[in-house]
Amino acid sequence: MELNENERIDDLGLANLKIIQNEKKFCFGIDAVLLSDFAKGIKKGAKVVDLGTGSGIIATLLCGKTDLGEIIGVEIQKDVSDMARRSIILNNLQDRFKIINEDLKKIDTIIPKQSIDVIVTNPPYKKGNTGIINDDKNKLISRHEVECNLDDIARVANSILKDKGEFYMVHRPERLPEIITVLKKHKLEPKILRLIQGRQNLKPNLLLIKAVKNANEFLEVQNTLVVYNEDGSYTDEILKIYGKEVK
Amino acid sequence: MELNENERIDDLGLANLKIIQNEKKFCFGIDAVLLSDFAKGIKKGAKVVDLGTGSGIIATLLCGKTDLGEIIGVEIQKDVSDMARRSIILNNLQDRFKIINEDLKKIDTIIPKQSIDVIVTNPPYKKGNTGIINDDKNKLISRHEVECNLDDIARVANSILKDKGEFYMVHRPERLPEIITVLKKHKLEPKILRLIQGRQNLKPNLLLIKAVKNANEFLEVQNTLVVYNEDGSYTDEILKIYGKEVK
Repeated sequence: MELNENERIDDLGLANLKIIQNEKKFCFGIDAVLLSDFAKGIKKGAKVVDLGTGSGIIATLLCGKTDLGEIIGVEIQKDVSDMARRSIILNNLQDRFKIINEDLKKIDTIIPKQSIDVIVTNPPYKKGNTGIINDDKNKLISRHEVECNLDDIARVANSILKDKGEFYMVHRPERLPEIITVLKKHKLEPKILRLIQGRQNLKPNLLLIKAVKNANEFLEVQNTLVVYNEDGSYTDEILKIYGKEVK
Repeated sequence: MELNENERIDDLGLANLKIIQNEKKFCFGIDAVLLSDFAKGIKKGAKVVDLGTGSGIIATLLCGKTDLGEIIGVEIQKDVSDMARRSIILNNLQDRFKIINEDLKKIDTIIPKQSIDVIVTNPPYKKGNTGIINDDKNKLISRHEVECNLDDIARVANSILKDKGEFYMVHRPERLPEIITVLKKHKLEPKILRLIQGRQNLKPNLLLIKAVKNANEFLEVQNTLVVYNEDGSYTDEILKIYGKEVK
């Protein structure tokens, strides 16, 4: 596999899977790992879409963790979607994982409506007009809602999901009221919520949410996931999620 | 102080305050203690309303923990409001704590609109038509939404609160999407959320939420409060909230 400038291959420590990343662009973090673990109950043969797939990290991990039938990664950036396609070849996942280089806002003109079982998404966390705007266009698109916002994602998710289809997202706790409002507006009823804290005494900095299209109102809030013990080592649950041995 | 049948006086371990409770009726739990601690930032001289005050436990604790100017406890049950009035006399709080025996849905015909700084409420957690319906009418009213529901509470809170007035509530996590939707509907923007877990590995069973009337969207999610250590003892934070010495 030939690499472009600034690219590297990382071993995912799972089923011999690897991912190509560009060191100068957005590289995956714990968010992607936690989301793919949160969504690991995806059923055998499911048709899945990853909205804003980037390097394809979440889709690649899900190919390793689940028996999903097919996953389509939607990515607006041409160069990033090309890099994701090369990771697919590297992992020999051509039969299960495909990339569509398109604006996700228009994806329901390509993917048939009400045809998808599961959506996963790690969207930009910040509003287009807030926070430090990153100079680099790739990081800007990955982190700020310049190309799409929460409402776009929920609208298109509702459009392509089957009735009772599942929607998994990782996002920031400070936007929880808006997340709930927007999901409900698009008939994606929040069913499971989990907060992630760095340590026991720190505020959560991530949340995982599962919504189900056209479901009844009843939220299961799971116990808060703590990443580090007081001594700075990973907690047992994080070790398990990363596939490490728990002592 | 004369007590009626089945009544007892409990010492609150705070500023020599006591509360009269009826052992056959709804008695306060950790919910009331956590809510009064959560709301302890109430400013000096504030005009406060406790919607559904019951025995008056939350209002009594707030009189001990804060320099609030006046608190009005609204209680629909005649006998319970009489019991709360006797606790007020027992604690010599007549100057700061008053009871109105009225349906809270009509309270904005008695308390002037936009006149209140802070609302606290520990409402019934369960929908009127769900779960085990309690035979005892008092416990039924305290636990199930038979006399008022979330929408009633948020509507009347909006009506009597000043602009930027604060709303503090304890409730159940499974109703978080509805809580957020209803609060936002009535212009009470969620600003602080805290989950409460019995133990590190258990799901949260309570939540504390602070909303501010007409505020901007931005939620601070605090670290999850854990009640018990793994050995079954109280965590340091719970000991502090209960005013106990931390070893």
